[in-house]
Amino acid sequence: MNIAAVMTEIGHIELQERPMPQAAPGTAVVKVHAVGVCGSDTTYYRHGRIGDWVVDGDIVLGHEAAGEVVQVGDGVTDLAVGDRVAIEPGTPCRGCAQCMAGRYHLCPDLEFLATPPYDGALMQYVALDARTLFPIPEGMTYEQAAMVEPLSVGLWACQRAALRPGDDVLVTGAGPVGVLAAQSARALGARSVTVTDVSDFRLDLARGLGFAVERSDQPGADTFDVLLECSGAPGVLAAGMDRLREAGRAAMIGLPKQPVELPVSFLNKKEVSLALVNRYQNTWPLGISLVASGRVVLDDLQTHSFPLKDTATALEIAAADPRSMKAIIYPQQV
Amino acid sequence: MNIAAVMTEIGHIELQERPMPQAAPGTAVVKVHAVGVCGSDTTYYRHGRIGDWVVDGDIVLGHEAAGEVVQVGDGVTDLAVGDRVAIEPGTPCRGCAQCMAGRYHLCPDLEFLATPPYDGALMQYVALDARTLFPIPEGMTYEQAAMVEPLSVGLWACQRAALRPGDDVLVTGAGPVGVLAAQSARALGARSVTVTDVSDFRLDLARGLGFAVERSDQPGADTFDVLLECSGAPGVLAAGMDRLREAGRAAMIGLPKQPVELPVSFLNKKEVSLALVNRYQNTWPLGISLVASGRVVLDDLQTHSFPLKDTATALEIAAADPRSMKAIIYPQQV
Amino acid sequence: MNIAAVMTEIGHIELQERPMPQAAPGTAVVKVHAVGVCGSDTTYYRHGRIGDWVVDGDIVLGHEAAGEVVQVGDGVTDLAVGDRVAIEPGTPCRGCAQCMAGRYHLCPDLEFLATPPYDGALMQYVALDARTLFPIPEGMTYEQAAMVEPLSVGLWACQRAALRPGDDVLVTGAGPVGVLAAQSARALGARSVTVTDVSDFRLDLARGLGFAVERSDQPGADTFDVLLECSGAPGVLAAGMDRLREAGRAAMIGLPKQPVELPVSFLNKKEVSLALVNRYQNTWPLGISLVASGRVVLDDLQTHSFPLKDTATALEIAAADPRSMKAIIYPQQV
Amino acid sequence: MNIAAVMTEIGHIELQERPMPQAAPGTAVVKVHAVGVCGSDTTYYRHGRIGDWVVDGDIVLGHEAAGEVVQVGDGVTDLAVGDRVAIEPGTPCRGCAQCMAGRYHLCPDLEFLATPPYDGALMQYVALDARTLFPIPEGMTYEQAAMVEPLSVGLWACQRAALRPGDDVLVTGAGPVGVLAAQSARALGARSVTVTDVSDFRLDLARGLGFAVERSDQPGADTFDVLLECSGAPGVLAAGMDRLREAGRAAMIGLPKQPVELPVSFLNKKEVSLALVNRYQNTWPLGISLVASGRVVLDDLQTHSFPLKDTATALEIAAADPRSMKAIIYPQQV
Repeated sequence: MNIAAVMTEIGHIELQERPMPQAAPGTAVVKVHAVGVCGSDTTYYRHGRIGDWVVDGDIVLGHEAAGEVVQVGDGVTDLAVGDRVAIEPGTPCRGCAQCMAGRYHLCPDLEFLATPPYDGALMQYVALDARTLFPIPEGMTYEQAAMVEPLSVGLWACQRAALRPGDDVLVTGAGPVGVLAAQSARALGARSVTVTDVSDFRLDLARGLGFAVERSDQPGADTFDVLLECSGAPGVLAAGMDRLREAGRAAMIGLPKQPVELPVSFLNKKEVSLALVNRYQNTWPLGISLVASGRVVLDDLQTHSFPLKDTATALEIAAADPRSMKAIIYPQQV
Repeated sequence: MNIAAVMTEIGHIELQERPMPQAAPGTAVVKVHAVGVCGSDTTYYRHGRIGDWVVDGDIVLGHEAAGEVVQVGDGVTDLAVGDRVAIEPGTPCRGCAQCMAGRYHLCPDLEFLATPPYDGALMQYVALDARTLFPIPEGMTYEQAAMVEPLSVGLWACQRAALRPGDDVLVTGAGPVGVLAAQSARALGARSVTVTDVSDFRLDLARGLGFAVERSDQPGADTFDVLLECSGAPGVLAAGMDRLREAGRAAMIGLPKQPVELPVSFLNKKEVSLALVNRYQNTWPLGISLVASGRVVLDDLQTHSFPLKDTATALEIAAADPRSMKAIIYPQQV
Repeated sequence: MNIAAVMTEIGHIELQERPMPQAAPGTAVVKVHAVGVCGSDTTYYRHGRIGDWVVDGDIVLGHEAAGEVVQVGDGVTDLAVGDRVAIEPGTPCRGCAQCMAGRYHLCPDLEFLATPPYDGALMQYVALDARTLFPIPEGMTYEQAAMVEPLSVGLWACQRAALRPGDDVLVTGAGPVGVLAAQSARALGARSVTVTDVSDFRLDLARGLGFAVERSDQPGADTFDVLLECSGAPGVLAAGMDRLREAGRAAMIGLPKQPVELPVSFLNKKEVSLALVNRYQNTWPLGISLVASGRVVLDDLQTHSFPLKDTATALEIAAADPRSMKAIIYPQQV
Repeated sequence: MNIAAVMTEIGHIELQERPMPQAAPGTAVVKVHAVGVCGSDTTYYRHGRIGDWVVDGDIVLGHEAAGEVVQVGDGVTDLAVGDRVAIEPGTPCRGCAQCMAGRYHLCPDLEFLATPPYDGALMQYVALDARTLFPIPEGMTYEQAAMVEPLSVGLWACQRAALRPGDDVLVTGAGPVGVLAAQSARALGARSVTVTDVSDFRLDLARGLGFAVERSDQPGADTFDVLLECSGAPGVLAAGMDRLREAGRAAMIGLPKQPVELPVSFLNKKEVSLALVNRYQNTWPLGISLVASGRVVLDDLQTHSFPLKDTATALEIAAADPRSMKAIIYPQQV
């Protein structure tokens, strides 16, 4: 039995039985215990596409996942049955110029969970390249392990922004990605982290995690070394870059659909930089260690829990409830 | 006698006699032999301002300069009377956070030639901080030495774009800055350099220097690792960034007056970066060595020559003549 | 009254009255409240020299210092009387090539407290360049502020070793510098930090701070990304580098008097790197923020306290007592 | 017919017929046209080992190679029969932590030509991973293509030494690797390159290529930003590092058998760095472009030519003749 939550058309998800996967050489089968709901899942659910990625036929969503290894294929030496693992959802070709340069996340042939045409992890068992599975220590929960994925977005964004210990950091947007970007910045040595949002609920959560907060419509006068733009709202990038100091660096994580306007003739005086961000690379070992050591706190982010059969409800609430941060779906609870 | 070309009002320049400068401790007096005309000079001449810098009262223009040391102040040990020098036009405070971090070009108190309220070098003698004067080797001309300033813009832009040896580089705009950025990229190890412009005259000059060329309205299909945007024309940055490969890097040198629109939701897939550029830092020794060794060729850029009394004509031709690249004014020819 | 602890000959210190300093332009007078004893102080006290630096005549020791601003000179805008400050002990020329490149700590004309011929801070009042004084927040003690100096050694060593978040770090030597290097590595995102020493007393202290520990004579089998060599003992660098992984990086902080032997024909397979370390640069803001936020814990390091008149005793105990970590001298307690 | 030069025991090479290789998926068969002789080839020939690599049974030497593609396997899209190619001799696993981090040259499972237990290229046909074959432009010779391998050592050493445009560079040792390291440094923007050796013959060759030269026993007084140690002779590294300026960087290419002694207590004042070097990574595209554009000149390095049957002679001359720089063996000339 391998039950999957399958999106058969836009806005419709049903449980189906899929074949039990077998571990081919170099792969392992994971019994999936926790899957976080991401904005990309809700976008596919509601619109059937994200940019050039268009859902064509059935698809299983979910790419923030963790579980237990139940079978390992030939040649897999670093994993054993029973290992509890966090899953990195992308498998690159490992041979192209991007891969050879250490930028496997930009591999043109990257196979990424829940990105058409690849199925995701909202099912009971998946077979994956063993090198994308990272054992987690005792005491770390599957929910935490699943959230290493959105944490990775924040960690990599800090690297893209060339965050240096001692920097003062502005994070615009206090959704799950923003809060994890803020925690990433703090864990990597930021001197101060200020978080902005339009939602008092989200700002309260950020404040509870120890961050300075600002309402987006009441910006302060402080300036910053680094901007991590996580809102995707129009105008926020330009307004944030305006608050950067000389040699400041911005990373753009939230993506507005419209083009962004930048006042370059002003920004050039301070010689700021802007880095776009496409997911992450090589972040799981760091992310796991930060969570395990308590330097990053994930538990408060989980606001909702669902069994697999309520996947549609989970997606709808994640999209619509202003008090939703992170919903976790439990595939073993059918 | 120290005759200066003074802009007394917008569009009007007259020769005036100024006091002969004396070398205070740490400074040297330079007899100015060559001054290049830059777009910023013509902008001040025609509009009296660049952004927040507004000309208020008399000003002497000119910041691309070279000459001969005729007097050195107390404590100056690295220069001697008779030294031929290229002039770096900015003097920083040397003590602020930017200066201490090695980013003296972003010093809030930078004193820069021909930027209000500071006079420039279109005069016969100037006194300058000795540490901004760089001796040039025998065989290097004053015209070449003056052009180390616009060359520095290209060299620093390459560094801002994190140009790596082996990169394929696109330079948009084949004016003096574009041609020097292209030469910088080649001298720093670029595998290929392609230059675009709307002017056949300028493209011919670039082709003559050994670069691949494209008309801006007939873009090729090649892709690039680095973009050096030197045109300042609307839309060129976004079009150029569209041609970057994965992990490509753009540096914005030419500055359009209007905000720039960037299609970030597309650019993020390739995870490109954009660096703004504010002049340069620590480039004179490298620039002088590249010119002296023939790895950068400046001579073909000089299209016009003027005595000091024809400064207004020089500024008008530099602004209006499509076949003007670099005009040099000779302050000792009055 | 400005009483100083003056070393008039090797091994002899006496209290003398010095003139009360006045704040020249750009400087401030600090009432010194706490001075840590460093190994270099004890070396000057016992041998009168460190390498080429030879004590010639009277000298005041002490360069780990903090105090209160009691007078500010003209042009000082960032400090006010009453500010509590940590002192960065070096003042560079701010104009040489090293300074302009952002490496002011390598300035050939650096004036450094308690390094011949410059006096140090073991006196009641000192006048210092205002830009070397960093205000500390309420709640931070003078003792902590003084220890930002040895903490800076650790912070800069991590940067010299190109420590990246997620690295596994080996710190050899658990004296004050080793313990602070270990804390620096953890605060900058190290995944694990292992500390070695020959002293069980010191290992206990390191263990109490949360680090894995090893006795130097019973090395483990683990390998590491980064080595911070803080012991200065013969053979420790080579043994530590042997435990580095591919692309591992070592920073050499402790300095043995004898040349170090490196088995390069072996180390090259892993392509490791070695960075020497000369003090620090631009670390005070970061160091203060790490201490203020509790991410670095200094209090347990202070093992001894002395009034100014017992400076000689402090130096002797610091040199001889195996249970001494950091002794603090209080210049206002005469 | 696929004739190979096989080393059947130390100091003995004979021609043998080997099976004609077939192109498995992802690979291509190359008809080998030129193979350079390297010091490692002569070491295996004379001693049967280099460090831990021990020849056990027959081995084919030669890893500096170029040829023509005569067959391509399934899935190979970037190569066609008839392509002339330079061969990168190492094939990594592409999946380990080193590979994923962009350091495939440090892959523990790297398969490298002519390194036990892997055969090399001194044969008429070899089958290789297609991604290790780099097409060369018309006009580039096979001899030049083969020498892209030792050139790569120089290029990567410059990167390991963090060579920056404008640096003054000292290259110790004017053998093939030294001369190519010197050319690499110049092509990457070095301001000056000084080459030292004990051989007047080699110094003359370096001088002819435009470099400043010094006899090793008559060192000059100049100081440098970068040291590329290519001699492997005892004491040269320490002497060279002694001539580095503040923040200078050394790369160790030549490997002495004995441990190297470094006077760290002196070197730390200038805060220099030392990087070991293990071959190269991602250098073929750059190397080919530098040779094709004439920025690196290889032709003068070839001092000897041999048909395949004279492989033993080639190895003996390369080891013994002080006037030998690079010997090329032509496998198609049997």
